[in-house]
Amino acid sequence: MTEAAFIAVDWGTTNRRAYMMSGEGTVLKTERDDRGLTAVEPGRFGEEAAAIRQRFGDLPILCAGMVGSVRGWADAGYRPCPVTIDDLARQLCWVEPGRTAIVSGASHVDGQRGDVMRGEEVQLLGAVAAGLAPADSLLCQPGTHCKWAYMAGGRLERFRTTVTGELFALLRRHSLLADYLGGDVRPGAAFDAGLAAADEGALLGNLFGERASALLDLRDKADIAAHASGLLIGTDVREQRLTPGQNVQVLADPGLGDLYCAAIRYFGANAERIDSHAAFAAGIARIWSLAR
Amino acid sequence: MTEAAFIAVDWGTTNRRAYMMSGEGTVLKTERDDRGLTAVEPGRFGEEAAAIRQRFGDLPILCAGMVGSVRGWADAGYRPCPVTIDDLARQLCWVEPGRTAIVSGASHVDGQRGDVMRGEEVQLLGAVAAGLAPADSLLCQPGTHCKWAYMAGGRLERFRTTVTGELFALLRRHSLLADYLGGDVRPGAAFDAGLAAADEGALLGNLFGERASALLDLRDKADIAAHASGLLIGTDVREQRLTPGQNVQVLADPGLGDLYCAAIRYFGANAERIDSHAAFAAGIARIWSLAR
Repeated sequence: MTEAAFIAVDWGTTNRRAYMMSGEGTVLKTERDDRGLTAVEPGRFGEEAAAIRQRFGDLPILCAGMVGSVRGWADAGYRPCPVTIDDLARQLCWVEPGRTAIVSGASHVDGQRGDVMRGEEVQLLGAVAAGLAPADSLLCQPGTHCKWAYMAGGRLERFRTTVTGELFALLRRHSLLADYLGGDVRPGAAFDAGLAAADEGALLGNLFGERASALLDLRDKADIAAHASGLLIGTDVREQRLTPGQNVQVLADPGLGDLYCAAIRYFGANAERIDSHAAFAAGIARIWSLAR
Repeated sequence: MTEAAFIAVDWGTTNRRAYMMSGEGTVLKTERDDRGLTAVEPGRFGEEAAAIRQRFGDLPILCAGMVGSVRGWADAGYRPCPVTIDDLARQLCWVEPGRTAIVSGASHVDGQRGDVMRGEEVQLLGAVAAGLAPADSLLCQPGTHCKWAYMAGGRLERFRTTVTGELFALLRRHSLLADYLGGDVRPGAAFDAGLAAADEGALLGNLFGERASALLDLRDKADIAAHASGLLIGTDVREQRLTPGQNVQVLADPGLGDLYCAAIRYFGANAERIDSHAAFAAGIARIWSLAR
C-alpha cells in the first residue's frame, strides 16, 4: 500500500474536505464535513487540525480556502495575478511551523476594480497541472460566487467573480419573490426561457417580471425557480462576452455544472465539465512537492 | 372655507397617506402614518376606514395602492394597458357600497413577460391630468420597485418595473456585502463612479467587485454604499435604453429622486423631478369627479 505523505484540507466558509495524500499525489482517502470557518471558534483551529490528525495520521497538513482569511486561522494574504503554482508553493503561510501551512489566495486588479479568491486558485492551477484543462483556457467555477479564470501559459492570468449564486439564495430566502422560488431548478424548457430572457440584458426588470408573470398567469408557478435561475446564470454568462466557439471548462459537480454548461452553450461557446475535486487534489499535491 | 368632498387614501404595503379633498381637487389636509397593509389584520380594514372618518369627517373614501391586492381589503383587479383615467373611474371596486371604493391597478403584457402596478397608475395619470408631465412622456417612479411608464396621448400605454430598490435593501441587510453598505448614499464622486461601472453592463461581476475593491484598499470603505447605489441605479437606467436628449419626469421625493435624475443625465437623457404627492392628489380628484 502507498504510504500517506500529507493531509490536504480544502477548508471553506461552511464546508471542509480533507484528503489523505500520497507523496505521488494520489488521493488515499477523503472526508467531508461541515466544520467550515463559521463552525470553528476563533483560536480553536489548532484543535481542529489535531482532530484531523487523529483520524488521518500524524502528518503535515496543507490547507487552502477561506481558512486563510482574516476570519479564519490566519491571513495567508493574496498573490497578485499572474500567479503560478510555484508562486503559491514558495509563499506558504505556516501556522504551525513545519507542521501546518495555508496556501495564499489570489488577487487581480483591473483599473479601479479589484477581485479576490481563496481556494479556487489551487483548483485552477491544479486543473492545468493535471492536464484536465489546457494551459491557455477559460475556466468557470460556479458556486455562491462564480469565478471566471483566464489561464495563459499555465498561469492564472486574470479572473472575475460574480455574485450569481449568492443573489439567487438572497432572492429565494428574503425577497418578495421568495414565495415563487420553491420549485426545482434543472435544465429544461423553463431554464432555457430564462436564458433567452437574460439575453435581453435587462436583469432588474426581468426579475420583477418573474413574479408579475406568475400573478398574471403567464407562467406556471412551478417553473418560476428554474426560469429565474436561467435568467441569473444566463446574465452571468452573458457578462463574460464569450466568443463563438470558445471553449470553457466548468469545474463543478453535475447539478450546478450542467446548468452552467447549458447556459454557456446557449451563448454560443463550448462547455465541458471537469472534476473539481480531482483538480484540487492535483493542485495541492503539486504545491506540496514544490514546497518541500 | 372650501368644503371637504371626499377622503383619498394612498394605502401602501408599509405606509399610508390620507388626503382631505375638496370637490375641486384641492388638498385641504393630509396625514401620513405607518398603518400600511402589514399593520392591519385581515378583516379589519373597515375599522381603519372608520377611524380615518373620525379624524377627517364622515365622507366617502377613495383608496388606491396595495390595499387593492389579495393581501389588502379586496382584490380590485388590474386594468390592462393602455389605461386612461376614465377606465379607472369607471371600474372602481366598492368595498362599502356608496361609501368606500378602491381604484384598480394596471397590468401590461409584453410577449411572455407580465408587469403589474397598484397605486402608481393614479400618480402617473394624475401627473398628466395636472399638466405636471406632457401627454406623451416617459415617467420614472423610483422606490422599492421602480416603475418606468410610457404615456401616449395622456394614456398609460406600457410600463416596466425593476427591482432596484429591493435589491439594494437585500444586499444591505443580508448579503456578504452588508458590512460595507452602511455608508451614506448621496450624489457625488462615489455615486458617479458607480454609474460609470454600471455602463460596463456587468452588474453581477461589479457587485462582487464592491467588496473585493475594499478588501484590496482600492476604494474607501465609506464610499462603497454610494458606489453600489450608483452601480444599481445606473444599471436600472441603462436597461431602459433611453435615447440622447429624451425627457424623463421623475416622480419622487428629493433624496432618491436626485439620485435617479443624476443617473438619467449620466446616460444622456434629460431629467426633471416632479411632485409625486401633487400628482396623486390630481389623479385621485379626477377619478372622483369622473366617477360621481
